[in-house]
Amino acid sequence: MRLSRYFLPTLKETPAEAQIVSHRLMLRAGMIRQAAAGIYSWLPLGFRVLKRIEQIVREEQDRAGCHEMLMPTIQSADLWRESGRYEDYGKEMLRIRDRHDRDLLYGPTNEELITDIFRFYVKSYRELPQILYHIQWKFRDEIRPRFGVMRGREFLMKDAYSFDFDYAGSKHSYNKMFLAYLRTFDRMGLRAIPMRADTGPIGGDLSHEFIILAETGESEVFCHRDWLSLDLRRDDVDYDGDLEPVIESFTSLYAATDEKHNPATCPLSADELVTARGIEVGHIFHFGTKYSAPMNAAVAGPDGEPVHCQMGSYGIGVSRLVGAVIEASHDDAGIIWPEAVAPFKVGLINLRTGDAACDAACDDIYSRLEAAGVEVLLDDRDERAGAKFADMDLIGLPWQLVVGPRGLKSGQVELKRRSDGTREEVSIDSALSRLTGQP
Amino acid sequence: MRLSRYFLPTLKETPAEAQIVSHRLMLRAGMIRQAAAGIYSWLPLGFRVLKRIEQIVREEQDRAGCHEMLMPTIQSADLWRESGRYEDYGKEMLRIRDRHDRDLLYGPTNEELITDIFRFYVKSYRELPQILYHIQWKFRDEIRPRFGVMRGREFLMKDAYSFDFDYAGSKHSYNKMFLAYLRTFDRMGLRAIPMRADTGPIGGDLSHEFIILAETGESEVFCHRDWLSLDLRRDDVDYDGDLEPVIESFTSLYAATDEKHNPATCPLSADELVTARGIEVGHIFHFGTKYSAPMNAAVAGPDGEPVHCQMGSYGIGVSRLVGAVIEASHDDAGIIWPEAVAPFKVGLINLRTGDAACDAACDDIYSRLEAAGVEVLLDDRDERAGAKFADMDLIGLPWQLVVGPRGLKSGQVELKRRSDGTREEVSIDSALSRLTGQP
Repeated sequence: MRLSRYFLPTLKETPAEAQIVSHRLMLRAGMIRQAAAGIYSWLPLGFRVLKRIEQIVREEQDRAGCHEMLMPTIQSADLWRESGRYEDYGKEMLRIRDRHDRDLLYGPTNEELITDIFRFYVKSYRELPQILYHIQWKFRDEIRPRFGVMRGREFLMKDAYSFDFDYAGSKHSYNKMFLAYLRTFDRMGLRAIPMRADTGPIGGDLSHEFIILAETGESEVFCHRDWLSLDLRRDDVDYDGDLEPVIESFTSLYAATDEKHNPATCPLSADELVTARGIEVGHIFHFGTKYSAPMNAAVAGPDGEPVHCQMGSYGIGVSRLVGAVIEASHDDAGIIWPEAVAPFKVGLINLRTGDAACDAACDDIYSRLEAAGVEVLLDDRDERAGAKFADMDLIGLPWQLVVGPRGLKSGQVELKRRSDGTREEVSIDSALSRLTGQP
Repeated sequence: MRLSRYFLPTLKETPAEAQIVSHRLMLRAGMIRQAAAGIYSWLPLGFRVLKRIEQIVREEQDRAGCHEMLMPTIQSADLWRESGRYEDYGKEMLRIRDRHDRDLLYGPTNEELITDIFRFYVKSYRELPQILYHIQWKFRDEIRPRFGVMRGREFLMKDAYSFDFDYAGSKHSYNKMFLAYLRTFDRMGLRAIPMRADTGPIGGDLSHEFIILAETGESEVFCHRDWLSLDLRRDDVDYDGDLEPVIESFTSLYAATDEKHNPATCPLSADELVTARGIEVGHIFHFGTKYSAPMNAAVAGPDGEPVHCQMGSYGIGVSRLVGAVIEASHDDAGIIWPEAVAPFKVGLINLRTGDAACDAACDDIYSRLEAAGVEVLLDDRDERAGAKFADMDLIGLPWQLVVGPRGLKSGQVELKRRSDGTREEVSIDSALSRLTGQP
């Protein structure tokens, strides 16, 4: 992408309304713009990150054998009356009346709708297990939306729903999602700790929140200090095998949100216990027949008798993750994207746009990177070098390649790694082979 | 994908509420399920087609130099009051009041919101031209939603917005979109004819609808018979060059919607004129300063004086296209997907699940197709052959590969092309090389 043609409106001033660093940096880096309280437009740079994160979530759901679908944003109130949650949900639910005076709502979650789909089509235990998911915009009418995309009203969520015939099957589905979540967040460069959690309005008997420790976190969390260094990824897991041992290796280590933590019964010594603030990026629930019973989602068992399905639901805050990654990875100059979610891998800076040698070298490097499938943003604007450096640090691409007239005379360019600021003078070919991974 | 694990609930009965063939087939093929009047859930098979179509639209927008972003579904009413459209839009607009009694609405289109973004960031003619687009759900509270996804209330639309400094630039942007649309629809196997059209509630002085001729079309259209055979694709167009000659080669041939057609002034002879019914799949508008003037979206020109931007907007009905492709391509047995939008390329039918030879051959073929990147749906259910054939015809994958015990004895499988029903007995290796394109 050539910056001269792109739509990347960075801001020099720090917007006054932004209280936390991710919100400030997303506004300054031209990633988002507020459309209304807690409702954002995603500008091209922010959109690219959102899609990267969405794709990692999707790949790990697919790997765990879940099937993607898409439910609408607007739902009929009738289903929520059936489950009994229409009144329960209170003012956080955005209630709508259409031209025919029918009650609709903007879905804050989808347990009712997926249960309705399931009960219509699935009749036999032979069709189980099944995990369906979608990645769709949700709306919760927060009384005080804040922190940018971290606590917005319209937000993008991945929500999955599992259907099993018995508790053992359902626990297996829960375990699959537990492990899929660990992989998902790890791929984004995040350490998300699974903590015993309250089930809240979703209900159920078993629940974990996946929490990133961060000073700006909204809630207090408690965990064993070993969580801070534990390897959270398991690459060799067979999702069809017995998952209990590997789950046990995680859940045996204490970690709890403030609703679940009780100082009187906490088994940890003061020395072992870490008390910190955390950001919730995922939440999984096992709730048995909480929805299948009132909505009568039953399948015939081997004996022909109908049995209400055992269900769980599994959410990931896709748009919130964009902010969470920034909270976890930034410095005073701006964002530091982990490569897996970066909007572009390389920022190519033409220090003197209009200089024939610089322009030609940049065009050549740009084409060769694109040809190798490396996503590159070329700053070909007619701007001072200082402004280009500042913008490139702000938007936080993992690599910067700086092309200037002086270096070019001896065939050198500067390669800078954003994460640690290390710089090297290298030949163009050597820079390219480093960035493309090709000799 | 193995059908035994997938969620593909086909229906044997034709649902009574469906009046047109695409609606009937989408319900029967387990692609969608109605959630409320004019609001649908996309089941996994339908979701895959929707994503295919979305991706073709995206690629052709990107090729034309447009930049993708994402605006929210919920908008503030204030912007619509500024443009003067809040009252104009009538009951088709879904109006919402939040917990703080602020007026919101579910966006039926985005001219106001994009103009607001643009005026905030863009200050100089040097930052033009710019075309931004997004692919987002919209809501129009149709009084009588019908025909499934063809005229739903919640629907997926790609809408792009161009900003230029002067009329000539704006016409060039319009022309780019005109040609990008021809490529887009052609890639989906559709003949979409650009017809002079009314500008309706969007406004402006120039507009084309892209129309597919179909008996089930909602409106009457009129065009020169040469449109029925004209090659609508131009692969050698330089989007930065002069587009007027190629546009002229299309627009010189008569084509108009019923609002624009006047029998008294139509230049065609009765012999040349085709009168047909049509389905609108795209609509492009040039409307100059209709939004930029009241909302004061101006940039400084070369002389420093502010000038209101020239704008256009460009829509494609992404979810409607799924129905439109089916209207254009089906037979009595079911859907016939053009390969570019098919949910899977190959349907692999195991005629006798449980037979060791059939299972082994299917597993082998399945792995080899997947390894070659060919998307395959394996019918490994314990069902009669007849049911498997009927379902596979219904869901319309381009190729069927049938593996049965008799053929296997002589190493043969049957390869059937869905579009014309031709069948061939071939060796497994020969079938694989045909489907993968590899020797």
